[in-house]
Amino acid sequence: MCAQILSTQPYKGTRDFYPDDMRLRNWFFGKIRRSLELSAYEEYNGPMLESLDIYIAKSGEEIANKQTYNFADRGGRMVAIRPEMTPSVARIVAAKMGELNYPLKWFSIPNMYRYERPQHGRLREFWQLNVDIFGCDTYEADLDVIESAISLLLAFGADETMFKVHINNRRFFNDVIAAISGTDAEGARLVSKVIDRKDKVDRESYEKDLHELGLSDEQIAKIDALYTMNVKDATALCPDTIGAQELVSLFDMLDKTGLSKYCVFDFGIIRGLDYYTGTVFEVFDEAPENNRAMFGGGRYDNLVGMFAKNAKISGVGYGMGDVTLESFLLTHGLVPDLNEGETKVLVTRFDDVPYEQYLSIVDTLRQNGITASIYVGSKKFGKQIDYAIKGHYSHVLIMGSSEAESASVKIKDLSTREESLVALDKLCEYFN
Amino acid sequence: MCAQILSTQPYKGTRDFYPDDMRLRNWFFGKIRRSLELSAYEEYNGPMLESLDIYIAKSGEEIANKQTYNFADRGGRMVAIRPEMTPSVARIVAAKMGELNYPLKWFSIPNMYRYERPQHGRLREFWQLNVDIFGCDTYEADLDVIESAISLLLAFGADETMFKVHINNRRFFNDVIAAISGTDAEGARLVSKVIDRKDKVDRESYEKDLHELGLSDEQIAKIDALYTMNVKDATALCPDTIGAQELVSLFDMLDKTGLSKYCVFDFGIIRGLDYYTGTVFEVFDEAPENNRAMFGGGRYDNLVGMFAKNAKISGVGYGMGDVTLESFLLTHGLVPDLNEGETKVLVTRFDDVPYEQYLSIVDTLRQNGITASIYVGSKKFGKQIDYAIKGHYSHVLIMGSSEAESASVKIKDLSTREESLVALDKLCEYFN
Repeated sequence: MCAQILSTQPYKGTRDFYPDDMRLRNWFFGKIRRSLELSAYEEYNGPMLESLDIYIAKSGEEIANKQTYNFADRGGRMVAIRPEMTPSVARIVAAKMGELNYPLKWFSIPNMYRYERPQHGRLREFWQLNVDIFGCDTYEADLDVIESAISLLLAFGADETMFKVHINNRRFFNDVIAAISGTDAEGARLVSKVIDRKDKVDRESYEKDLHELGLSDEQIAKIDALYTMNVKDATALCPDTIGAQELVSLFDMLDKTGLSKYCVFDFGIIRGLDYYTGTVFEVFDEAPENNRAMFGGGRYDNLVGMFAKNAKISGVGYGMGDVTLESFLLTHGLVPDLNEGETKVLVTRFDDVPYEQYLSIVDTLRQNGITASIYVGSKKFGKQIDYAIKGHYSHVLIMGSSEAESASVKIKDLSTREESLVALDKLCEYFN
Repeated sequence: MCAQILSTQPYKGTRDFYPDDMRLRNWFFGKIRRSLELSAYEEYNGPMLESLDIYIAKSGEEIANKQTYNFADRGGRMVAIRPEMTPSVARIVAAKMGELNYPLKWFSIPNMYRYERPQHGRLREFWQLNVDIFGCDTYEADLDVIESAISLLLAFGADETMFKVHINNRRFFNDVIAAISGTDAEGARLVSKVIDRKDKVDRESYEKDLHELGLSDEQIAKIDALYTMNVKDATALCPDTIGAQELVSLFDMLDKTGLSKYCVFDFGIIRGLDYYTGTVFEVFDEAPENNRAMFGGGRYDNLVGMFAKNAKISGVGYGMGDVTLESFLLTHGLVPDLNEGETKVLVTRFDDVPYEQYLSIVDTLRQNGITASIYVGSKKFGKQIDYAIKGHYSHVLIMGSSEAESASVKIKDLSTREESLVALDKLCEYFN
């Protein structure tokens, strides 16, 4: 034991979870689990440490090295603390590729680390819900994951005034750009790259770049118009393309199932240009003070490519950070008082009553499913009451020598401050 | 995306949790949580990464460096992936020392890494239940944590033939050694060090070492006798010492509360010689083929010393690894078939029935709390049935065009293979 006094701060960008914090986390992870399991999604997980290779294979050496915590282990292997789940789940699926029951409906709530400057809503250690369907190429899977995202927000008590799912389709995006610009696929790709950077450059250089690719002012205006179109008008611009048909099918089902009030077509949703290949979506917080994309996802074609040659498993899914969800719930007042309504009994003690009598009461309460604790240690009665109040106990049981003689206890309800004298053999009835 | 094909193996000493594995984990972590919460223990957690300093302060530089995954971050700070929870919880308690509500009854189920050669029951990544009471110096807290360990094994269906809690007391150990050897505290400490190594050396050198410290054959025989004594005879050797009195009080309460059938006094339980200061215990698996200490713990005096000068908070608790518990439950046949008895409905689909009709059925089932999924994608009926069987679905719903016309569905119970034709508006009644 060294004599130096060490810092009590958690490592930069990480959090300590005291019991009140932890109760909140368990509550919301529990709700997420129940919501997804009700839709037959199954939970999985993988290790915190992975070979650095898999992040390099996905994102390139520079990004992988920069964004992960990585180091050489004693065997000289480069390992990283996972910064995201997709490479892990790709590995996990690839390892048993031939045995699994497709389509997989999977979710996970792993903790992960990203090496970044801690700032509002961006921590170094965070938890991320990952929901995916693997092995189904058609819009039904897209619909299923979007529905799961809506369902879990509804499970928390959110409604259509609080969030909106903005949906686009990357095939449609490519096809409609090709249709408007009249170029071939390669030409459309170059135009897409300019459009992808639209929000990052000023209007003048945006137009200049498109002019250089041969687009007229009229064509640019047609592209501009897409951003305010509804899905029917937008898809009418290239009705026979696969992308347009996927969008039409998806929105048709959203309409018929009553989910369309949570959704909107948004041509501005593009996401990673080289990664997503079909439906893409982002869920926006509708609170005026917090209006921004909370999380998103989409369809990608080749999950297992880096692990298996000549095998193709497609995926569609999303990832949602715990900090984002927590801030959404707090903004909209959707976090209840988790202590309220819970029965939690503190059995106080006096030195002149045999200790085993208190232990027996606690045991009886627990046997009947009532959360109970004896006050461990022996302090003055007032201190024990303070302990109960500070510890969110709902009731205090008091048995001095006179109550003990008459085989009864005083029960004090800490919310109403009412006291009742209850016979020991009626104790559990009092709480039921 | 690089062209190289990567390994699908998880990192050495870690595990992937496929849905079946994960269901088992969630089941047993859930049982642990419920059992501890019923006794008013509260869950907390901390970050995976901690400053390496806190492990060096506890265990010394050599052990800390050898047993942890540690590395310098980009700011030059030495960080470690937590290999145990005690230094973290000490830091967490110390950070809010003046605000907390003592005695704290806390537990945690963190994942952690230890750098060691993977072998049976020893993995590099594992989860460890930590249960502690902080801030109560008397035997009541020792009793409470021992009771919590027994309760959680009982919650899994274990009984007294399957496990036994071996209990000793380090104060008693020191006092009785001093009483037998007739030496002062320092002399007793030297004797204790020899006894602590008893199982690691042969009998001859054990006796030689004790002789060198001045003990006679008669005194050595007295020490030998302690290993087979019951608590009453053992404590009678130095009845007025605090250690003996703590043991007597503890075993008296274990008797009076009916817990003594799970417990036994065992002078052979010493644990870390420099760490524990009072009650110590180990829980043994009683299966003949697996008879060994599964987990243990005890009382230690100074939790927060490395973080706060002049502050003393004592603790008593234990840590239990997930692999150990899992192997205990499997050995004793205490893991039920987690799929059995669960209702999980797959709605199959045909192309000639509008898809929204299937979506509406799924929605109705979920609204009534029944786990349900539509078959996403469109494959032949036989493939959809295979999917249901392999995916542990309990029921399959079949609605072809003729059933759709009569607003009914066929329900096939996959366990009994019975089929029923049920009107759509009686669907939920069928399952309730």
